Amino acid sequence: MNNNKGVASTSSPPTATRLQILLSIPDAERAAFISPETRAALDGLGEVTEVAPAELQSLGAFSAAAADKDAFITAWGFPRLDAEHLAAAPNLKCVVHAASSLHALVSEDFWAAGIPISQAGAAMAPAVAELSLTFTLNLLRRVHRLDHGLRSGANWDDARNVQRAREISGARIGVVGASRTGRRYIEACRALGAKVSVFDPYIPTGDSLEASSATLDDLMAHSDVVAVHAPATPETAGLIGAAELALLPDGAAFVNTARSTIVDMEALYKEVHSGRIDAALDVFDEEPLPASDPWRSLPNVLLTPHLGGATVDSRRRAGGIVVDELRRFIGGQPMEHALTRADLERMG
Amino acid sequence: MNNNKGVASTSSPPTATRLQILLSIPDAERAAFISPETRAALDGLGEVTEVAPAELQSLGAFSAAAADKDAFITAWGFPRLDAEHLAAAPNLKCVVHAASSLHALVSEDFWAAGIPISQAGAAMAPAVAELSLTFTLNLLRRVHRLDHGLRSGANWDDARNVQRAREISGARIGVVGASRTGRRYIEACRALGAKVSVFDPYIPTGDSLEASSATLDDLMAHSDVVAVHAPATPETAGLIGAAELALLPDGAAFVNTARSTIVDMEALYKEVHSGRIDAALDVFDEEPLPASDPWRSLPNVLLTPHLGGATVDSRRRAGGIVVDELRRFIGGQPMEHALTRADLERMG
Repeated sequence: MNNNKGVASTSSPPTATRLQILLSIPDAERAAFISPETRAALDGLGEVTEVAPAELQSLGAFSAAAADKDAFITAWGFPRLDAEHLAAAPNLKCVVHAASSLHALVSEDFWAAGIPISQAGAAMAPAVAELSLTFTLNLLRRVHRLDHGLRSGANWDDARNVQRAREISGARIGVVGASRTGRRYIEACRALGAKVSVFDPYIPTGDSLEASSATLDDLMAHSDVVAVHAPATPETAGLIGAAELALLPDGAAFVNTARSTIVDMEALYKEVHSGRIDAALDVFDEEPLPASDPWRSLPNVLLTPHLGGATVDSRRRAGGIVVDELRRFIGGQPMEHALTRADLERMG
Repeated sequence: MNNNKGVASTSSPPTATRLQILLSIPDAERAAFISPETRAALDGLGEVTEVAPAELQSLGAFSAAAADKDAFITAWGFPRLDAEHLAAAPNLKCVVHAASSLHALVSEDFWAAGIPISQAGAAMAPAVAELSLTFTLNLLRRVHRLDHGLRSGANWDDARNVQRAREISGARIGVVGASRTGRRYIEACRALGAKVSVFDPYIPTGDSLEASSATLDDLMAHSDVVAVHAPATPETAGLIGAAELALLPDGAAFVNTARSTIVDMEALYKEVHSGRIDAALDVFDEEPLPASDPWRSLPNVLLTPHLGGATVDSRRRAGGIVVDELRRFIGGQPMEHALTRADLERMG
């Protein structure tokens, strides 16, 4: 099958037959997602019109930009595709979302319209997995406690007086969620010599992770580090509560780069505040995390402001996925990262 | 060859024929180095007498403990083996040092006496390599800046406003020194997808690292992260000075878990203080690092108090090496980690 089928050449295609593409990425992220190479590839696929999502917030402005467009390339901040907005884009045949979560973008009316939609979440998985690995190594090596101690002015010997570091080689790592991100994290941990177990009720029979499968309680009770890589769904809400956290061995570490709803954050705070366990968190119940939030002042916690998926590399990959998906759509092939309403419910 | 040759059984060996072993590890580290299994193995090899190094500081106390001993197992704080101490240990045939550096332990007189000495530095290499990897991931992902920002009370958006993170997969990593530790670090970085180059004038012809070899200047100019894994020798003193640091690309990161003497720390401070590059350091010119040291207050530096080699795992491995080396010595085999005076000069 010819992947380039339907791709107009850049020389002299009649404009009317070319795909009309609305490219709408927030200004702050535009260059990160759309490299010159990605832009050139998009120009090869159709007529690209760029309008920042901030300029599409009124229905009038949206209509003016969207009326003749066949495809939207979206990221954060694009107007929700409800009945009103769909009516303003009568030619719309395809949406490719350069970011991950579709919840703010789609609506019942969108699903009812049957327009194919795809997203570039796959681009983020390696980035989130690497942040989770970085957190894991920090906590095992107590780097966060040591750094915080030295920065707080503690004398050398007091700063050194933390529970002795563990190496990842040989460490028991429990992974909650065999997601795309979870699987990348598992690969990296295993490459560094860790012993991995995984809790996920949906691991398919015959999957390579089957042999590492554990119950959630067993995983909590027998891990040096537990890392969350599950989606935020009604089923996972509050999955890890006070009872599960209490099973963690003394001195264990808890890593969350997924979503805070999976964890009872109050129960986690109690365990971390007591010093019994350490934690590293990229996600919080309230984001932005208020300046006075108590998480910010615990010496045994490592914090990042929800940037797990935001790397130079993941943005570039997302741009590449957008091009590939549009090319497939134009060529009449199914998009590789197309999502249905059912997928969305399962993914969170 | 029988590895157990000469090992007395624990049942009924005549005491006179058993090796008399002085085991002298600081109290704070004793349990970490000498697990019950290691102790049982030592008991199988000879008659073990334990005296903490703190109790051997007077020549009288040393003489009382050492007079009839055939072997010393040492770590930090053991008296220097000069002429006086050697005279007090006339039966001494072998020293196994459970820690790494021998500089404080040996003397000209010791080398002149021709007593074999071995050390367990190999046990530390994986631990130091893992800390260096942890530092590398932190700096690439800007975790140190993000964590310091959130802890300092910065608002969410300001805390997020750091140079965008890079992934280790695809990053250019320059390694200064193809030491045992450097090689472990390189393996780990490659397992995670990094492109590694290495500067070491002593890479043997045919070595697997030959193809990755670079000049120091090229390595500095074309790396996203530079990690130091060279020994502290007269040759490496000041190897990385202001001129070399100036070659680092803007936004690059510098990792040192080896020794500070290899780097012009004042020049490094200037580059890091300006914000042009970030750094993560386990070693300093002055240790203990004074409470008021300016390194402690830079937001773009990650600090640990010289604990690269100090993990639960490395201490256990060191205990195992001690047993294996003594077993080899008793069996008439060469010790695998024996060092000569020339080795010591090369190793730093």
